[in-house]
Amino acid sequence: MRFSSFGELAAACANVPEGDATAAAAVAAREATLTKPAGSLGRLEETVAWLARWQNRNPPRLERVDILIFAGNHGVTAQGVSAYPSAVTAQMVANFAAGGAAINQLARMADARLRVLPLSLDQPTADFTAAPAMSEQEFLAAVEIGFDAVTSGVDLVCLGEMGIGNTTAAAALTAALFGGGGERWAGRGTGVDDAGLARKRAVIDRALARHTAALADPLACAATFGGRELAAILGATVAARLRRIPVLLDGFVSTAAAAPLVRVRPGALDHAMAAHVSAEAGHRLLLRELNLRSLLDLDIRLGEASGAAVAVLLLRTALACHAGMATFAQAGVAEKSSD
Amino acid sequence: MRFSSFGELAAACANVPEGDATAAAAVAAREATLTKPAGSLGRLEETVAWLARWQNRNPPRLERVDILIFAGNHGVTAQGVSAYPSAVTAQMVANFAAGGAAINQLARMADARLRVLPLSLDQPTADFTAAPAMSEQEFLAAVEIGFDAVTSGVDLVCLGEMGIGNTTAAAALTAALFGGGGERWAGRGTGVDDAGLARKRAVIDRALARHTAALADPLACAATFGGRELAAILGATVAARLRRIPVLLDGFVSTAAAAPLVRVRPGALDHAMAAHVSAEAGHRLLLRELNLRSLLDLDIRLGEASGAAVAVLLLRTALACHAGMATFAQAGVAEKSSD
Repeated sequence: MRFSSFGELAAACANVPEGDATAAAAVAAREATLTKPAGSLGRLEETVAWLARWQNRNPPRLERVDILIFAGNHGVTAQGVSAYPSAVTAQMVANFAAGGAAINQLARMADARLRVLPLSLDQPTADFTAAPAMSEQEFLAAVEIGFDAVTSGVDLVCLGEMGIGNTTAAAALTAALFGGGGERWAGRGTGVDDAGLARKRAVIDRALARHTAALADPLACAATFGGRELAAILGATVAARLRRIPVLLDGFVSTAAAAPLVRVRPGALDHAMAAHVSAEAGHRLLLRELNLRSLLDLDIRLGEASGAAVAVLLLRTALACHAGMATFAQAGVAEKSSD
Repeated sequence: MRFSSFGELAAACANVPEGDATAAAAVAAREATLTKPAGSLGRLEETVAWLARWQNRNPPRLERVDILIFAGNHGVTAQGVSAYPSAVTAQMVANFAAGGAAINQLARMADARLRVLPLSLDQPTADFTAAPAMSEQEFLAAVEIGFDAVTSGVDLVCLGEMGIGNTTAAAALTAALFGGGGERWAGRGTGVDDAGLARKRAVIDRALARHTAALADPLACAATFGGRELAAILGATVAARLRRIPVLLDGFVSTAAAAPLVRVRPGALDHAMAAHVSAEAGHRLLLRELNLRSLLDLDIRLGEASGAAVAVLLLRTALACHAGMATFAQAGVAEKSSD
């Protein structure tokens, strides 16, 4: 196995490379020459510099974009925390394969390659109200699958998930990492009613009370409260940093999955952008904790990398402007007067 | 001329058709059968229903999307309200023709047809600190050009503008329509410094004090404080409603241009969506006055329909999901349990 302990994984995170400030500065310098008021394309300009910084390349490129969806099942669904039965995880994986899900349409629009990786769907994680969701070794095995799913030659990775029950896991994990209980972090997920939401909050609080020993170690939190698909997203996020591939995080679950990394090493998510802010209640809170500003705010709360795929379109338009626009000199347009 | 007086134009606005609630309901009914939690694509779902409502068609389509940029020059630039000289308006029109501007790249990404209509660039409107920007007949002539630019067979129209000085005109117009002076509505436009911003505010306040007689009539306000490109956007907005074509408004100037219509007839902008909220200070205020929620918030402040073009991509993805996704029944995915 690539990492044999929490400690080895933490050590790998401690040694990730920084971005390329020179490439980012070169992008900004070209932006200043293009026929528009300085900075007037706003966040589109920022994303081009961000791609350059984390691809280590000027100009950046988006020739190959991978969308990775990791799927897992959760023992905590026994507590009645989801509006859908666990069988839906595998049914949706089949729907991804058949091309019928939202992400199939969005990936096509974004000109991205969609890869779906189901993780032992017939072996749900343990119900974390009774025991840790995963052992250290189970967790690291899932991390490795995510790590290895990020292949070199890719220019951008979008990380998403499918897993009935996983907004409960994500909320428990963020509560463990950032404080506050079920009241603060639980949302309606795929659409639980008021009673379901109350159950979800209570489940999270019971789990936090049971697993106090895990709280000091962010990776132990990820194993105890998370899920295989969350662990894989964490592994993919680390691999992307090591391979100089920028990451678009999707919604609440994907962002929660990667969040332990910033507790291992501040700045460990600097190569990741929040594609959107989900309508799932905890996501806005989590982005604030991580000091991430989302690109999009469209009330999407679907998961399966849907928000990330939409954001790919913004990155492509940003890059098209950067590459295709004329400079003031080329176009014979007068520059700003120095008054 | 199509409209011979403010009164004739107002009468045309009073008789615009309503949207097709049946088409919108049919879209919503299909959304509910698709393999995702109800409403989980958020505003993407809303946009499909909105297109159906205002195209009078189920399913809606986006086969032909027009981006119209109207360009005009402004006498008020004599007051030192812009960071760029007036000559840049024509230079940018040439840049549009040559394919070097941001909107050229964005229109290509959005698979939209770009049309640029310069309006008497060698005859700037009057400096509205001294006289009304346009006479009633000059205003109506520009309205007509916009009206006629919207052709049948188009599925969506994006309305944008180019005109050095026109954020001052837009701010004066919104101040006249919604109250508050230059302090409330003026922003930095293409990038004036503090002294330029102070001049802009003072110019607006002087104009409001001079033209009190116009304030009672929203169309007289548009003629007095606006510009030819703003008048054309107003005309195009009316024509689109009459031809059942939904409209994407771009930034502060485009939205201000259409704003008089809601003072003529409440609901006159129901077929228009705010593509984005600009970084230009007055835009957020104006959207609040109009009760419009923007799709995007990307700190763009370029004009030339740039934000609207980006939003076209969102509409296309929304439509792709609506058309291409499998239903629960088709995919064999279990529906939400009724707990």
